[in-house]
Amino acid sequence: MKKSYFRPEIDTMAGYVPGEQPVMENLIKLNTNENPYPPSPKVEEALRSFPAGMLRRYPDPMANHLRDAVAGRFGVARDNVIIGNGSDDLLTMIFRAFTAPDKPMAMLYPSYSLYAELAAMQGASVVRLALQKKSFALPENLLEQAKACNLLMLTRPNAPTGTLFPRAAVEEICAKFDGVVVIDEAYADFAPDNCMEFAKKFSNVIVMRTFSKSFSLAGIRLGYAVADADLIAGLMKLKDSYNVDRLAQLVGEAAFADVETLQTHCRMVCAGRAFLTENLQKMNFYVAESAANFLFAAPPDGDGKRCFEELRRRAVIVRYFPGEMTGNFVRITVGNDAENQKLIQFLHEIYD
Amino acid sequence: MKKSYFRPEIDTMAGYVPGEQPVMENLIKLNTNENPYPPSPKVEEALRSFPAGMLRRYPDPMANHLRDAVAGRFGVARDNVIIGNGSDDLLTMIFRAFTAPDKPMAMLYPSYSLYAELAAMQGASVVRLALQKKSFALPENLLEQAKACNLLMLTRPNAPTGTLFPRAAVEEICAKFDGVVVIDEAYADFAPDNCMEFAKKFSNVIVMRTFSKSFSLAGIRLGYAVADADLIAGLMKLKDSYNVDRLAQLVGEAAFADVETLQTHCRMVCAGRAFLTENLQKMNFYVAESAANFLFAAPPDGDGKRCFEELRRRAVIVRYFPGEMTGNFVRITVGNDAENQKLIQFLHEIYD
Repeated sequence: MKKSYFRPEIDTMAGYVPGEQPVMENLIKLNTNENPYPPSPKVEEALRSFPAGMLRRYPDPMANHLRDAVAGRFGVARDNVIIGNGSDDLLTMIFRAFTAPDKPMAMLYPSYSLYAELAAMQGASVVRLALQKKSFALPENLLEQAKACNLLMLTRPNAPTGTLFPRAAVEEICAKFDGVVVIDEAYADFAPDNCMEFAKKFSNVIVMRTFSKSFSLAGIRLGYAVADADLIAGLMKLKDSYNVDRLAQLVGEAAFADVETLQTHCRMVCAGRAFLTENLQKMNFYVAESAANFLFAAPPDGDGKRCFEELRRRAVIVRYFPGEMTGNFVRITVGNDAENQKLIQFLHEIYD
Repeated sequence: MKKSYFRPEIDTMAGYVPGEQPVMENLIKLNTNENPYPPSPKVEEALRSFPAGMLRRYPDPMANHLRDAVAGRFGVARDNVIIGNGSDDLLTMIFRAFTAPDKPMAMLYPSYSLYAELAAMQGASVVRLALQKKSFALPENLLEQAKACNLLMLTRPNAPTGTLFPRAAVEEICAKFDGVVVIDEAYADFAPDNCMEFAKKFSNVIVMRTFSKSFSLAGIRLGYAVADADLIAGLMKLKDSYNVDRLAQLVGEAAFADVETLQTHCRMVCAGRAFLTENLQKMNFYVAESAANFLFAAPPDGDGKRCFEELRRRAVIVRYFPGEMTGNFVRITVGNDAENQKLIQFLHEIYD
């Protein structure tokens, strides 16, 4: 057998499994929570007028124009903001900063499974905080369970459940947890409220946002985090020198400034969510209350896998997560009107 | 004092210092080894015709089109190639994979100082292999010095010296070192030969390249590494899921296919390097033999700092590295003809 030079934590990890990118005619892709509407028209304008010759120069390593735009919108200073090559890049910095074999991490279950993988890379153990069955509410003794941890990941709205945990409960956790609380707000623009003010109020809280969902820019890889200046300064040490390229900065600035398109598309997605919720409930699906751009829904027979497979046969791709808490469900990204109607039509075929 | 939740390795690191981006009229920027010529015209065409609406979709997480192009050019398989968000991203994966408190790293000195910072983040100690004075040749007992290390970084051509270590010496190191050898070939396209074949011949060797220098795409953040499939598979586990965005993949594919522009611009840079070398030597500069797109040169008075400062006063920015082995020198990026002539003219003003 060939000798391995990898750290044992890496050798024992499962290999990376890229997201499903099926090539099918007339595919309706509702599996990765992408926005059904295009990004701001300002994005196309910015790309068309960009002088490509400038690409020979390194980008601004700090992405300060974009930091200033984010800081201005949320009433914080530039030093309270860091820009990442997608939220993934920020999560990588956060886990490298705050987890280690002697610094365990706590996360909700079910939630974004990447967190556990990032902890494993650091050799950090993971405390899973199981949400309450069906309601997917926070566990009552969350702080007690997470006590020994240095990092607590809260996803709000949560994925894959869509749950919007009460702000007051999140605030209490931020105040009482002795460690860093990361509130991953990837889906916050689709929700009636958010926790950005806790990043200003508490020195141990990081609020993360992404351009992938509400800004329709999953293709560009852009995210940001807002926190106490000392936390941001520490994360900067772990940042790749030039982590965000010129085109991503350009496109991000253009999209971020266009609040009208953002709000219009979020309203349209929320209307689609209401349409789907109503129609799924009429068909006796159990639909978890969602504040995101997707629904976590259990078909009447409680067989998430069958639902996933039957839809796939009809060229509709949704997401299925095997497991005790999730196996009864599928996660359905809200599509555009035509896609949503087609989905409901197919579900009638399957379940009527 | 506020409590810190950071890992101690991060707390004790110096903060990140972004590269100098001075705002000056008519600046001649010869400090970060950017290419003086623009990227392939195919890059602009690709950007102009890209449908911006597609940015709502995630990119290919593996960048397989680009992997296949790289694999095709070097006669390896797709599984032997990984694409990074710049070489920095690849270096981050490599250090997270192969360094730890019990897995030290060895690097040349002087060389790319980022390696030592990446090791520090992992809590790994660094063995510095001092190059020979003036010639900047490899130390004779390199393997003996690096013996306890799990990772050996070789930069060829080396930065900031420009030195092209003999291929036979590198091959012997690859064969005998019990650990991973990374050959960082950021500047290989400006050199008369390279070590790509060692990535095929040895299962412990990774060869890295970047689009930042010869392809004039520093602004886009794109790099790749070629190695044994098991090494690549392990690095993939550490890769952010979608590390390279759609536009970077698009632009990278367009530039990579245009071999003619690459070769033309490399020839022009090499001609500029010869012009500068000749003129600097006439002025009694000591010029280290360079196979890269920059020169490491010591002015007649051996005062690198003064040279840097006098040039800066004339709006020419070069790079100065304080230190015993480097303080006599400045590193000068090869510019275009007008920039190179201007530089020589200013140096005459300073030293005649």
